[in-house]
Amino acid sequence: MALRTRLTEKLGITHPVLLAPMGTIAGGRLAGMVSEAGGLGLIGGGYGEEVWLERELAAAGNRRIGCGFITWSLAKKPHLLDLVLAHQPAALMLSFGDPRPCASRIAAAGTVLICQVQRRDHVIEALDAGARIIVAQGSEAGGHGGGRSTLALVPAVVDLVARRAPETMVIAAGGIADGRGLAAALALGAEGVLVGTRFYATLESLGQEKAKTRILASSGEDTVRTSVFDAVRGYDWPDGITGRALRNDFTERWHGRERELTLALDSERTRYQESAASGDVDTAVVFAGEGAGLVEDVPQAGEVVRRIVAEAEHALRAARSHIA
Amino acid sequence: MALRTRLTEKLGITHPVLLAPMGTIAGGRLAGMVSEAGGLGLIGGGYGEEVWLERELAAAGNRRIGCGFITWSLAKKPHLLDLVLAHQPAALMLSFGDPRPCASRIAAAGTVLICQVQRRDHVIEALDAGARIIVAQGSEAGGHGGGRSTLALVPAVVDLVARRAPETMVIAAGGIADGRGLAAALALGAEGVLVGTRFYATLESLGQEKAKTRILASSGEDTVRTSVFDAVRGYDWPDGITGRALRNDFTERWHGRERELTLALDSERTRYQESAASGDVDTAVVFAGEGAGLVEDVPQAGEVVRRIVAEAEHALRAARSHIA
Repeated sequence: MALRTRLTEKLGITHPVLLAPMGTIAGGRLAGMVSEAGGLGLIGGGYGEEVWLERELAAAGNRRIGCGFITWSLAKKPHLLDLVLAHQPAALMLSFGDPRPCASRIAAAGTVLICQVQRRDHVIEALDAGARIIVAQGSEAGGHGGGRSTLALVPAVVDLVARRAPETMVIAAGGIADGRGLAAALALGAEGVLVGTRFYATLESLGQEKAKTRILASSGEDTVRTSVFDAVRGYDWPDGITGRALRNDFTERWHGRERELTLALDSERTRYQESAASGDVDTAVVFAGEGAGLVEDVPQAGEVVRRIVAEAEHALRAARSHIA
Repeated sequence: MALRTRLTEKLGITHPVLLAPMGTIAGGRLAGMVSEAGGLGLIGGGYGEEVWLERELAAAGNRRIGCGFITWSLAKKPHLLDLVLAHQPAALMLSFGDPRPCASRIAAAGTVLICQVQRRDHVIEALDAGARIIVAQGSEAGGHGGGRSTLALVPAVVDLVARRAPETMVIAAGGIADGRGLAAALALGAEGVLVGTRFYATLESLGQEKAKTRILASSGEDTVRTSVFDAVRGYDWPDGITGRALRNDFTERWHGRERELTLALDSERTRYQESAASGDVDTAVVFAGEGAGLVEDVPQAGEVVRRIVAEAEHALRAARSHIA
């Protein structure tokens, strides 16, 4: 079984399924296992820590993987891009910020540039940067993202890219946790999907056990798009970008009361850091998307890839059979 | 060309496309034309005005149509339900509130009950009320709705309904403005779609010309989910339900400043009512979903139905062809 698209051709992979580069969660082993199963794993470079990156690049072994960064954070630590490019990744993904300053080094390394966008107007700078693959990320997604939802964003981005740069391809992210989501993405004109939350809850992910257990127990309604975790951790994200996370005691207390949180930061930050260090997920953030409601077990990552593809094939055949 | 699903069988229609019962916009002529083209038109009962309803039911002529109401508003004017049921509608749709108090009269009239849900937990009361069709409405939708997005909500509702009441069917709403959206909905396991914004911009819709023109010029980013129009109009909506509308001067001024708006209501309400009466869409609300970005003309409603079905067939064949 296989699903062939322009994405699988471009990346030389078997299945049009990419692992979202979830910071601190998508390590080398998880990325490697997704690639081994026929997708492409992207290590979550996140805010960029050199020691962590070196270790996780090593953990991927000789498997063909890529890496993703938070663009505005990478801009402050440009040497990390060189560090990753030296490993000849299969692709380099940038999200949240202007990708153009990094573009020439990525092109010079011969690495495929993937840019994630949250709005139609991000597409233009992604194309200017030479992106070969554009991820249209809906607000359903776990972790950082914008306000547009996947179902209407993807076809709008597909149309824009088809007019401006038809050789560039679009994949969908946000709310995709099973093969029905992949099938829907293909129906919308995407060439594949980027999947986060479903891979968080796998054996190889670096997420805590407690966090994985909580994802299993959560529905989409148990997630919220919020800025309170960024505020308490001291990260200064661009306007319009928030993080979708599981609701917990901390969001109950502070979401909607961001101004009060800012005033209480001195004490709250210390309390938060202690909770995070002790793995207390009632306070610490567990980033997860609305797809959490479709996650019911913690299998191996390779099994997730195989399931998604098998389910997608089934969904595509069933949907096609409606044509009278 | 036709797409057959359990929905088309249940309702005796040709295409699995329902007109969203947009209050003041989806009148009898629009509903009738959608039905004539093979879908099912639902008149937008909205907050419920007897004279308007009588006129629009008459305007549908002898075409087979349905009607939709805002449940919490209908509860205050129960005679309107009897008025509509006396016309033997093909279906009666309820959204926003507990449908159970109306259920027995709808069942007694032999009318198919459609319940729209915004969260998984709404499904249980819809099934208790005897809903035969459940609309899973994502936050992409124009007008009133909740916070869950279509792509992840639909499969979660499909799974829940399949376990609890497998004979009941699920259709998708929110962000669906072309055939790719219908194809994606079918891939997610829905049996059809409910479409609003795309039908707002048709010749037969009762929307103002200016409002239709503005929808054409808008992208999904030009819409916002807000409560400011409800506040200024004096409607008391349930918690968690807001309205997605085109951004305009009024949302720029008041969205995010709801408390200040409440304090300024005396003067703002008068100004708003004057603007609305004069058709000033810089101030007055134009409800529209993220699908506005996919709307580029104002054709006849029947043409929209035909296009959606043809595009969906094309999208389903293309998506299916990815199977290697």
